[in-house]
Amino acid sequence: IITLGVDIGSSASKCVIMRNGSDIVAKSLAPVGAGTSGPEKAIADVLQQYGGSLTDIHWICATGYGRNSLKAANKEVSELSCHAKGANYLFPGVKTVIDIGGQDVKALHMDGQGRLLNFVMNDKCAAGTGRFLDVMSRVLETDIGELAAQGALSQKRVTISSTCTVFSETEVISHLANSETIPDIINGIHQSVSSRIAGLAKRVGIEAPVVMTGGVSRNFEVVRCVSEEINAPIATSPLSQFNGAIGAAIYAWESYRQTKNNETIITGRIL
Amino acid sequence: IITLGVDIGSSASKCVIMRNGSDIVAKSLAPVGAGTSGPEKAIADVLQQYGGSLTDIHWICATGYGRNSLKAANKEVSELSCHAKGANYLFPGVKTVIDIGGQDVKALHMDGQGRLLNFVMNDKCAAGTGRFLDVMSRVLETDIGELAAQGALSQKRVTISSTCTVFSETEVISHLANSETIPDIINGIHQSVSSRIAGLAKRVGIEAPVVMTGGVSRNFEVVRCVSEEINAPIATSPLSQFNGAIGAAIYAWESYRQTKNNETIITGRIL
Ligand code: SF4
Repeated sequence: IITLGVDIGSSASKCVIMRNGSDIVAKSLAPVGAGTSGPEKAIADVLQQYGGSLTDIHWICATGYGRNSLKAANKEVSELSCHAKGANYLFPGVKTVIDIGGQDVKALHMDGQGRLLNFVMNDKCAAGTGRFLDVMSRVLETDIGELAAQGALSQKRVTISSTCTVFSETEVISHLANSETIPDIINGIHQSVSSRIAGLAKRVGIEAPVVMTGGVSRNFEVVRCVSEEINAPIATSPLSQFNGAIGAAIYAWESYRQTKNNETIITGRIL
Repeated sequence: IITLGVDIGSSASKCVIMRNGSDIVAKSLAPVGAGTSGPEKAIADVLQQYGGSLTDIHWICATGYGRNSLKAANKEVSELSCHAKGANYLFPGVKTVIDIGGQDVKALHMDGQGRLLNFVMNDKCAAGTGRFLDVMSRVLETDIGELAAQGALSQKRVTISSTCTVFSETEVISHLANSETIPDIINGIHQSVSSRIAGLAKRVGIEAPVVMTGGVSRNFEVVRCVSEEINAPIATSPLSQFNGAIGAAIYAWESYRQTKNNETIITGRIL
């Protein structure tokens, strides 16, 4: 059974094709505004990588912010449920998932078997999200992908005391004017965003094992700082940006099996 | 009796000289970073306007964010108390003061005789403060002083749905990309900031008469929108940016009288 999970996020669409809800056979990612509309491009890419067409897919499940827009979907599942399921696929037994996207932060408390017990989320305030780092990297004229490596070179503690992105930006500008070094300022930024992320995660209750997913989890300095703040090791995976899509592909598989089972039973009853 | 009130704020220092705690005889304002350090410049300016020197001043009261830094002060009074007293001087009988500065918003509930009953304040988040308008005027390349006049020309409702300054900035950029007009976008910005300000004011409990003070009160469109949101007329005054300094000068006068009375009594007892 071949299933497709599509995660239509606010900044990128991600697709994963799985066999029997257990093996990833293809995946793709298309940023929003990449020529063709994001989801269409991601689906075309994943099918090309798979070497088949939509007719080869038994069941499609959509998730994420824009999941309603995907007409081809057989099923829609909330982002949180898909993230929980995807995280448990990548990190079996995980109890806490800290997911940091470009526009939101979520902390999930799970039962160790892929089920969500509780969550907290912030999608109203840019502080603590990837957007905070975007804004800072622009002010510092440092590529977002360079932040971790640069911040790791810091020799001195520089404090960013505001939590607000806008007020923090002003602090960064005055640190630059005071000739603080870029690595020290970046380290201050990492400390600031990490303390905010850790604060949110603590509200959901942290239970090991802990993983971090989403774009910001590729910043190893943020991972390290949050880990220190919550006093627990944090696992990451380069596949974690496909978390939601993986969860969706597994839900598609479960939903397909259930539907087929029900059809058999119903057929049985009618005869 | 001549008293001096000095309000050392985060973006400007303001001074007021009063006679007998009732007449304003001189005033000055010096933005932070205006050559000489802000407070010194403001004091020099107000004395020049008064035509005297520090020795002509009977009592000095400092208030605001940086009040501790003024060594010459005989007394320090909190910003909130000075704002309340100053507002009641400018608007006798006022019950609600909405003060919007560059970095914070305060709503004061007063007893109609210059005493503060209750307040709510936001100084952590740029949304709802003057800073929100600064950021937007920069994106729109429109002078901050032009916002009200431009916004008043709006023909159509354009919505800014995020409250966060950072996310709102993104919305403004996409409205520009969608060829919405500058006046319509500015109107959307005014609506957004006003609903946030009104929300804060409602938390303190709004009782007429209501006044708006602080830099943003010079934006007549924000005043109008907030007034609609809270369903009450709002008074403003060009002198309202001196609110805190006026309150401080009145406190200086009260404190001087009290001190002198006490000295007389003590002297009386000793003899
Ligand atoms: S604190 Fe700053 S980043 Fe957060 S909502 Fe307010 S303006 Fe946005």
